[in-house]
Amino acid sequence: MLDYAHLTALAAVIRTGSFERAAQQLNVTPSAVSQRIKLLEERLGVVLVVRDQPCTATEVGQRLCQHVEQVALLESSLKGSLPGLQAESLPVTLRIAVNADSLATWFIPAMAKTEGYLFDLVLDDQDHSAEWLRRGEVVAAVTGHDTPIQGCDCHPLGALRYVATASPEYCGRWFTDGFNELTAARAPCLIFNQKDRLQVEWLRQVLGADVHPPLHLLPSSQAFVDAALAGIGWGMNPEPLVIDHLRTGRLVALKPDKSLDVPLFWQQSRIVSRVMGNVTRAVVSEARTMLAFAIGT
Amino acid sequence: MLDYAHLTALAAVIRTGSFERAAQQLNVTPSAVSQRIKLLEERLGVVLVVRDQPCTATEVGQRLCQHVEQVALLESSLKGSLPGLQAESLPVTLRIAVNADSLATWFIPAMAKTEGYLFDLVLDDQDHSAEWLRRGEVVAAVTGHDTPIQGCDCHPLGALRYVATASPEYCGRWFTDGFNELTAARAPCLIFNQKDRLQVEWLRQVLGADVHPPLHLLPSSQAFVDAALAGIGWGMNPEPLVIDHLRTGRLVALKPDKSLDVPLFWQQSRIVSRVMGNVTRAVVSEARTMLAFAIGT
Repeated sequence: MLDYAHLTALAAVIRTGSFERAAQQLNVTPSAVSQRIKLLEERLGVVLVVRDQPCTATEVGQRLCQHVEQVALLESSLKGSLPGLQAESLPVTLRIAVNADSLATWFIPAMAKTEGYLFDLVLDDQDHSAEWLRRGEVVAAVTGHDTPIQGCDCHPLGALRYVATASPEYCGRWFTDGFNELTAARAPCLIFNQKDRLQVEWLRQVLGADVHPPLHLLPSSQAFVDAALAGIGWGMNPEPLVIDHLRTGRLVALKPDKSLDVPLFWQQSRIVSRVMGNVTRAVVSEARTMLAFAIGT
Repeated sequence: MLDYAHLTALAAVIRTGSFERAAQQLNVTPSAVSQRIKLLEERLGVVLVVRDQPCTATEVGQRLCQHVEQVALLESSLKGSLPGLQAESLPVTLRIAVNADSLATWFIPAMAKTEGYLFDLVLDDQDHSAEWLRRGEVVAAVTGHDTPIQGCDCHPLGALRYVATASPEYCGRWFTDGFNELTAARAPCLIFNQKDRLQVEWLRQVLGADVHPPLHLLPSSQAFVDAALAGIGWGMNPEPLVIDHLRTGRLVALKPDKSLDVPLFWQQSRIVSRVMGNVTRAVVSEARTMLAFAIGT
């Protein structure tokens, strides 16, 4: 078998980003950490750590790091049978891919319902978060992908409703002649990043045409709302984040009867099902409460 | 000289992520776009676009893309002298690196004060955002780096004040024996990502020791506040985001007299100084209003 003391040193260097901090975390000297990584690299014949500030993992290093974290997860499920382990064991870290809008609306209350876990969240678009799981870089994902990924269980969560919103001043400036193909092609639009297809999808549904507005790229859910409020652009905002602004009139819906529902799913690696059972239950129950316009639940 | 029709096609493919969308944006056929990229690749003898979903740039492709965007920026500064250009020219896109907490607090009001620009924001830690500028991947950055980067002008913005905050329930659970080295080493702490050294820095300043608490990684400014409110962990939150919660008692400061001021600077490529003058003025003026606890201003 692999040497798990060495692997633990590797994971600590990758997670903390430095040999010194890894050493402090493991209560050994930096040279002991360095020695362990070196032995591991010699045995495997590949470089595992890019010595930089911060230190990062090579591809193989990352794979080993994931492996040792999964082993730690499995170990933690022994706790029930071996009470002696409890005292010495640290809380397990769950690396999970989440779309930014779920983090901004319902995911934190779900995290708060669990006990004894640490979360390492990776943000990615709901159309891409499943890839993290497929690559084995996370143990679970909130995703738009509705069929189970190999080795994973898939739980439907309901749908997050999006409303195309802008400030009244913005609409007065760009849409006095109505909201149509011509005006939409000139009015600045907010997108999260290049992966974000929501705005263009919605334009196609509503106007029946491919429209390519000038784009601001703003990779933050809250910044999207703030930029809409400030009149910088219009964007598809999750209803829970804008409902109060819509009520008070600080934001208006471009097409009040045309919202867009994005179905979400919780996919979770079956290997860690037992360890993560509480998290899955919290996520599913919180999503079903918060995603009021749920589909398929 | 390089063929700028070909380079424009390259930039459109990289920005939209597909040949089809680039073609629509440029009002040509996808095969014309494909042909232009191919000619460019053949002439330069390197691959410029990774054909994938979405299409991404190779390192050289990225460099050329930055070049063509800078040329577009320079062209836009001709507008004043050549009014005939005005009608046909599109707004210029400014790629800027910003730390997430600036985006969450004062950067959007600064954007709203400008006219005729599109923003492509890249988020990175204030200790790392300057690297984007050094690599030529952005034209400006909000950074903690206080000496001018080569070819750039540096404007001090003041400092963003951070307060170590948690919910009263969280403090009741983890700090009933006081806030000290021992309790801080057990209480779950929020960090933004591995680059985020604020919490550990603050612990060192306040406790005079290197403390390594269990960590949640939460890469979102608003999620940091939400997670503190939900009792998931404590974290260094920007004062503007938590001041109301501190007043109402939903959050408490772990050490009310020990805040941490992080000085910020606006560094901006001198080549585009004229084009970006309005943006620099808006950024500097907004920062100086919002960063109330300014240092060196």
